[in-house]
Amino acid sequence: MEAHYRHTPSPVQIIPLSGLPEVTPGDDLAGLLIRAVQQQELVIQPGEVFVVAQKIVSKAEGRLVRLDSVKPSERAKDWAAEYGKDARVVEVVLGETKRIVRMERGVIIAETHHGFVCANAGVDISNVPDGTATLLPENPDHSARMMQQQLASAFGVSVAVIISDTFGRPWREGLVNVALGVAGMTALIDYRGQHDTQGKTLHATVIALADELASAAELVMGKLDRVPAALLQGLTIREGTGSGSDLIRPAERDLFR
Amino acid sequence: MEAHYRHTPSPVQIIPLSGLPEVTPGDDLAGLLIRAVQQQELVIQPGEVFVVAQKIVSKAEGRLVRLDSVKPSERAKDWAAEYGKDARVVEVVLGETKRIVRMERGVIIAETHHGFVCANAGVDISNVPDGTATLLPENPDHSARMMQQQLASAFGVSVAVIISDTFGRPWREGLVNVALGVAGMTALIDYRGQHDTQGKTLHATVIALADELASAAELVMGKLDRVPAALLQGLTIREGTGSGSDLIRPAERDLFR
Repeated sequence: MEAHYRHTPSPVQIIPLSGLPEVTPGDDLAGLLIRAVQQQELVIQPGEVFVVAQKIVSKAEGRLVRLDSVKPSERAKDWAAEYGKDARVVEVVLGETKRIVRMERGVIIAETHHGFVCANAGVDISNVPDGTATLLPENPDHSARMMQQQLASAFGVSVAVIISDTFGRPWREGLVNVALGVAGMTALIDYRGQHDTQGKTLHATVIALADELASAAELVMGKLDRVPAALLQGLTIREGTGSGSDLIRPAERDLFR
Repeated sequence: MEAHYRHTPSPVQIIPLSGLPEVTPGDDLAGLLIRAVQQQELVIQPGEVFVVAQKIVSKAEGRLVRLDSVKPSERAKDWAAEYGKDARVVEVVLGETKRIVRMERGVIIAETHHGFVCANAGVDISNVPDGTATLLPENPDHSARMMQQQLASAFGVSVAVIISDTFGRPWREGLVNVALGVAGMTALIDYRGQHDTQGKTLHATVIALADELASAAELVMGKLDRVPAALLQGLTIREGTGSGSDLIRPAERDLFR
């Protein structure tokens, strides 16, 4: 079996893409990224990876809900009253939810319609105007693919695109950036069947490459600054047809449903 | 509140530290890292981060078990027979376990004595000689601190050290590198109380910086090559007294025990 990604002994650079304007519905996000690359005088090589924050993808796609248009259900009102939340936001969360995983102590961990398990079904009220909530993109893999095609065509080389968001994890404190949508690469590196340094066959090693790339990008993206995208250079990512949904564990293999 | 880490608009470099010899018990691991830095003619700046794979820390510390010295219990034998595992390895796993989280379908998810929740309580038989298993370091924070002091003294600047291992996650496919031991920095960045781009106060945003640094480092470390450590440059990590155990969610705040 051939590795999809050759771990290289050469350095990797994580480059913040800054200078993007405030993104609004209908914006050509790939176009804004292309302009940022040109302004920073970056030269794009084959196999490099763009990581783009979900928040600006959602804004460009108009995945925004005005809270004054939301009529909260009784369930949302009760929960909101108990924990001092905004019932309209709770209602939006429930609307994005396929399955409640945990709903206790003021925390809603939900499986979204896409299959992501995360806090508040990905609904967020930070970094958007007051009275507005953002939803996750309807199809992050599609969003990534559209941007990937536009970027590859503009730069004349194969590139990969990851749409990322910060998720919490059971058992561990703090959020990490993960990949929601993936295009132009394989999301997982499968080492199974390969041999370790002792010549033994590796059995259980599949690395979530796209999640690690998303986490790496977050180091320059930040929550407070206007750095909603990053470019990873020096990688030798192979072209591939992976997707963000490859990173979602199927129900039948999930011990923690 | 002051951020512990200033997200910088400047690039970050992930540099593989290669050329380390096969590590054996009693080796001076920090000394080997110092030599690798010198051989690669790297200049260490304040606030840079060394990420070191748990496997070589465990080897240097002699955290190895010869399987022919292990007498499996009946429980280990039954489980091993049912799923085609080595009963001696299962016995070692149970010995490292404080609490079984899941033990089904051939998978053991265990809470270690340190509090980490991971597959096989961190016991591993890859990249070690046949008939041997590695255990996690007894106290990864202590191991990180010892290395951190030696590295800071050798280079004359404050640096941080992370000891990393690849862990699986519920709900998501694939492993990602996380931080077991941390020294010289804060493990989490707390944005709570700060303001987003709209001037709203952020409530729930704590980023697992040390885990994201570990994941970034894995991009150059790999499972098959002899790159057991990486250096992250271009960061402006602040000195701090964080630890790997800061990343373990306390039982009372854990919805997934």
